[in-house]
Amino acid sequence: MIALLGASGYIGSAFVEALERRGSKFVALSRGQLDYTRFSVLSAFLLENKPEFLINAAGYAGKPNVDACEAARAETLEGNVLLPLTIAHACEVSGTPWGHVSSGCIYNGAKVLRGSEWEIETDLAGGAFQKRRLENPESIRGFDELDRPNFSFRSPPCSFYSGSKALAEEPPGGMGQCYLWRLRMPFDENDHPRNYLSKLQRYSVLYESTNSISHRGDFVRACLELWERRAAFGVYNMTNPGHVTTREVAQMIRRVLGIEREFKFFADDREFYGSGVQALRSNCILETRKLSAAGVRMRPVVDALAESLKRWQKMPALRAA
Amino acid sequence: MIALLGASGYIGSAFVEALERRGSKFVALSRGQLDYTRFSVLSAFLLENKPEFLINAAGYAGKPNVDACEAARAETLEGNVLLPLTIAHACEVSGTPWGHVSSGCIYNGAKVLRGSEWEIETDLAGGAFQKRRLENPESIRGFDELDRPNFSFRSPPCSFYSGSKALAEEPPGGMGQCYLWRLRMPFDENDHPRNYLSKLQRYSVLYESTNSISHRGDFVRACLELWERRAAFGVYNMTNPGHVTTREVAQMIRRVLGIEREFKFFADDREFYGSGVQALRSNCILETRKLSAAGVRMRPVVDALAESLKRWQKMPALRAA
Repeated sequence: MIALLGASGYIGSAFVEALERRGSKFVALSRGQLDYTRFSVLSAFLLENKPEFLINAAGYAGKPNVDACEAARAETLEGNVLLPLTIAHACEVSGTPWGHVSSGCIYNGAKVLRGSEWEIETDLAGGAFQKRRLENPESIRGFDELDRPNFSFRSPPCSFYSGSKALAEEPPGGMGQCYLWRLRMPFDENDHPRNYLSKLQRYSVLYESTNSISHRGDFVRACLELWERRAAFGVYNMTNPGHVTTREVAQMIRRVLGIEREFKFFADDREFYGSGVQALRSNCILETRKLSAAGVRMRPVVDALAESLKRWQKMPALRAA
Repeated sequence: MIALLGASGYIGSAFVEALERRGSKFVALSRGQLDYTRFSVLSAFLLENKPEFLINAAGYAGKPNVDACEAARAETLEGNVLLPLTIAHACEVSGTPWGHVSSGCIYNGAKVLRGSEWEIETDLAGGAFQKRRLENPESIRGFDELDRPNFSFRSPPCSFYSGSKALAEEPPGGMGQCYLWRLRMPFDENDHPRNYLSKLQRYSVLYESTNSISHRGDFVRACLELWERRAAFGVYNMTNPGHVTTREVAQMIRRVLGIEREFKFFADDREFYGSGVQALRSNCILETRKLSAAGVRMRPVVDALAESLKRWQKMPALRAA
């Protein structure tokens, strides 16, 4: 039996679907029935019920977006740092292996080859970077799991959300028998306030950048596969291979969904951050070779995006509007 | 046997002195020998050695002052939130009662009687407040242990230090068999960078306010007495009864130490916070009736201050200067 925390959330509900599709036995723990944020409660549950694996998809991402985490600091730290630490301790006491939905938004930028050195470039919207990306893709690399987060409390500036997610990856002595699954800007075919494709359609002006992003269904399937294959515990970048710019995704949305209006873009960072945005945004490219070396496949990002848009399901409320 | 964490720090070393004076058996755990920040290491130690009580005097207060915590967010959260949570879990697993050096700097202001209502007043340097304080002291009250912190991440604005200390007091389900000992602006007769009386002598310009503060020796003795009396676990305000203004303390310093120069004061908050200070400062009055009701006495703050200054010991480096 697998124990699932945060089943009602955007990622947790995808775990529910994937586990049901597999016919896996699982129990979704809800705080109302079992307050798993309490160490004594969670460890007693684990010792008594002995789940083979625990999935933590609970966390605090901020509503409607990460800006909310700048003000809700206690909630952000509780959800993203104290809860995972409590789970790590309870899993250690009970010998339960587990997986934690971490975030790739603890990096900013990509690595570019200058001479014989790989240097970090953070202006992923810049013309020089875009030219290099199209003309000389081999001279660009994402961050891999050995790179230290560069958008975190230890490497400021960062958003409060990113700081909290990075901090949760580094308790002294590690997280135990744990997968740290790094998700980024999830999307799929179902319109939803947290779906990256929905957000792009709803914002009046877009922010151009280059990113590695995660198809929600691909992500949870890959998470489960790591466990099913008994891959080594540790950190995994779990984005669809490749990277896309906001303009490329916007063009795909227009073309596939037949949207007539042109998307508008902020002229630059100054205009974007002057528009009322409170938290700095992480924009980054991630390498996913560790995941594929473990034998787990996620579709190339362009394929996952095209497929999602082809099967796009608007939310009823939006259809009516 | 008592286990002491953070023995080398300003408060930890006072615990060492007090325990030695009592002839209590204790072991000072140092991270170099035993990494108590790791749950598995600490819980194994507690299960094996079965100390009757654990004292956590480790934490991150920032050097030279709380401003440092604004930048060192990971260290602040690790020292002040993640470590106490880890200790709480290890103490729960091993059934070890413990005490944690918390802080009273999670409040701002005092309560004043207006009509039949007690209202929070935060301008403790203001003339109206000072007049009331001198002429009608019964119309002023400090915060007691039932008052929710009003200088915390849940009640912003606050300093990052105060936010972290308040968050540590509230893990879901409580801290277990734990005393939360709230210290404020410690002082005693020994010149030291963290001694409030030393700080006042070293700052070129002072910030006027009204505060409840803790004599370092009185504080640790009172902490130990709570445990020795087997007082109920929970939160205790551990300041010397009463409150003093910065000007009053400065006058005592001049008079007792025979200092000729007049202390200079910032004209107001604007001038103070415009002087390069980064973190908001907590200034508050605390009630200590819960402590005295538990049968534990701390001297009135004016007596503790007068005695400390009478026995003042300059640091050698300063004497030579």
